[in-house]
Amino acid sequence: MADFFERSLIVHEQLRGKIGMHTRIPVKTSDDLSLAYTPGVARPCEEIAKNPARAFDLTIKNNSVAVVSDGSSVLGLGNIGPLAAIPVMEGKALLFREFAGIDAWPICLDTQETDEIIATVRRIAPVFGGINLEDIAAPRCFEIEAQLQDLGIPVFHDDQHGTAIVLLAGLLNAAKVVGRNLTSMRVVINGAGAAGTAIARLLRCVGHSPDVCEPVAEVIVCDTRGAIHKGRDNLSAEKQALLAYTNISNFTGSLEEAVRGADVFIGVSKGDLLRAEHVRSMATDPILFAMANPIPEIMPDVAISAGAAVMGTGRSDFANQVNNVLAFPGIFRGALDSRSPRITESMKIAAAHALAGCVTAPTAERILPDPLDQSVSPTVARAVCEAAHADPSITCLA
Amino acid sequence: MADFFERSLIVHEQLRGKIGMHTRIPVKTSDDLSLAYTPGVARPCEEIAKNPARAFDLTIKNNSVAVVSDGSSVLGLGNIGPLAAIPVMEGKALLFREFAGIDAWPICLDTQETDEIIATVRRIAPVFGGINLEDIAAPRCFEIEAQLQDLGIPVFHDDQHGTAIVLLAGLLNAAKVVGRNLTSMRVVINGAGAAGTAIARLLRCVGHSPDVCEPVAEVIVCDTRGAIHKGRDNLSAEKQALLAYTNISNFTGSLEEAVRGADVFIGVSKGDLLRAEHVRSMATDPILFAMANPIPEIMPDVAISAGAAVMGTGRSDFANQVNNVLAFPGIFRGALDSRSPRITESMKIAAAHALAGCVTAPTAERILPDPLDQSVSPTVARAVCEAAHADPSITCLA
Repeated sequence: MADFFERSLIVHEQLRGKIGMHTRIPVKTSDDLSLAYTPGVARPCEEIAKNPARAFDLTIKNNSVAVVSDGSSVLGLGNIGPLAAIPVMEGKALLFREFAGIDAWPICLDTQETDEIIATVRRIAPVFGGINLEDIAAPRCFEIEAQLQDLGIPVFHDDQHGTAIVLLAGLLNAAKVVGRNLTSMRVVINGAGAAGTAIARLLRCVGHSPDVCEPVAEVIVCDTRGAIHKGRDNLSAEKQALLAYTNISNFTGSLEEAVRGADVFIGVSKGDLLRAEHVRSMATDPILFAMANPIPEIMPDVAISAGAAVMGTGRSDFANQVNNVLAFPGIFRGALDSRSPRITESMKIAAAHALAGCVTAPTAERILPDPLDQSVSPTVARAVCEAAHADPSITCLA
Repeated sequence: MADFFERSLIVHEQLRGKIGMHTRIPVKTSDDLSLAYTPGVARPCEEIAKNPARAFDLTIKNNSVAVVSDGSSVLGLGNIGPLAAIPVMEGKALLFREFAGIDAWPICLDTQETDEIIATVRRIAPVFGGINLEDIAAPRCFEIEAQLQDLGIPVFHDDQHGTAIVLLAGLLNAAKVVGRNLTSMRVVINGAGAAGTAIARLLRCVGHSPDVCEPVAEVIVCDTRGAIHKGRDNLSAEKQALLAYTNISNFTGSLEEAVRGADVFIGVSKGDLLRAEHVRSMATDPILFAMANPIPEIMPDVAISAGAAVMGTGRSDFANQVNNVLAFPGIFRGALDSRSPRITESMKIAAAHALAGCVTAPTAERILPDPLDQSVSPTVARAVCEAAHADPSITCLA
């Protein structure tokens, strides 16, 4: 594994940039130069000045996404700052291009102030068709995303919704494997950060139109102090908000107590905190997603020996990898293709169902497609585009 | 000409983006994905977190330039705003790639407040190796550029210095054609905006080390009210600053009076304001640069008939086009290659001399290289890189 990480360093050193620009028009003759630059370029400029929506027809705006981070919560490395976050944001841009043909550019911000991040994204928005927020710490990630929903182009925090969408797709297929319905399930989520909160919202259909959504019966979210419940002292505003749609039974115990009898465990926290005995205490045919990286909350072999019916992790070397690359390229492709002003809840649900549908006969070993499957993103994109057009809460421009 | 502009519109409509991203590493296998993205990417991230300068070795930062505009002074179109400016900034990025292999990205800012532009550029700087300011109106362009010189990467307003450098190169060769020395010349500049101010500074060697610089004897800058002189009411701070190094004789007349006996006329203003009689009133073998676009201050045939020895314009259909593409790609290439923290005055002077040297035997019809000559940018880059290393006022990191 040390060798592997050194190999990654060497690859990055050799490349000095995993992405690059290319020209899409020749500049070999005086005519070329006059058409693409001055004086010819004045014509499309005037056209956009008269009708701003024409920027989508005449510039890269129709296909460009900013991958924006403040470097405050990068992978499992934490707050390493904007410079050290560049390799991740470049990698994300690489995947946007590879899986959805999108021209993405990394923007790493030298500020971690909520208001400054919001103001900066607003100011740089004109050239972009979408904003992918990435690796921004909770709770500021919630406010930043919420405040930017009026920008006129999709603003989407992938650590929240990308993860939640892939998780829901996996859970839909896992439910088929065990022959159960989501609406009867009791789910325990460990981790109340960006991903945990978004998963809880999606599973409880918060903000979703009921005709596209099937809420699970109960979600209990735990943090390091156990279940988040009404009696807890000093709950943050974000955790208090969670109580509007989670822990209806007002369960007050520990994580270990919460999983007793639960149908589903979802870990978005840290490694190695669940034991075989906890899995054995769950309901029959329990479903586990242990997504901490690189060490899952419980190792698959341990969970399966203890009776887990379906087991997913965040790792590529185990079955059922919950990898955001299954969602975000197709979601942005669909949003850009429809010129949707936002990525709505119904678009997220549609993405999850389309993603689940990419696996024709789900098994315990295969509830999600291979992250490298190039057919997934176009399928997700089509579903997202259709959902955007069908969503009465927005007006699509294409 | 109307046909030509319609053709440019059609080209822009067909392309929907003159530049695009490409991937520089395959993402076909699980190993590819793990190396370029998670978990492998954690290794270069940690490396940069420990040593921020490593961002230049491990990311696109070493080769990326932001083309930043607020859309306030675009071509001859004026304040058309950030969306309508995108085609120009994309075109600029195209030329950065084509002539210097630089990965440039357009950033069009939805603000025209000086402080907000400065703050925004600071915040988005981490992923970039340089900032090219473009089409930002005077006088705010001066303060924005000045305030950003401490950013640690080159910040260069091309409308000022790119134009001034190409003009100086042209003037150096025009002086050879007429057998004169710059130090004896009296120069009249019409236009006190970004380009006029930068040209005046460069020709008067303001801030330049004397061993690389040869100041012209006198520069008089005119605006719409005639010569800028000490007795003028309500001069802006920027115009007052010009008086520290221009109009030493305190000439108080009109443009027409100023050109009488002058050796050089430089127009960076508006079209069709100089007549044959004015050219005839200049010194023997006068040199004229009439750079207003699309209509020059005086047409070349008129000026030459009236005795102009050398004549340059901003247009590609006349001889001696003063085109910034001769300078900015090579200047940024040289600055990036030397990891210079700024583009210093000696680097600008070196660029002008290298550019002039690209024409081996200057004639009245050829004082500047062809803008499409691909050998120019590498030549300018080498000279800029050498000048950066030789400049004691900065420390280059490569």
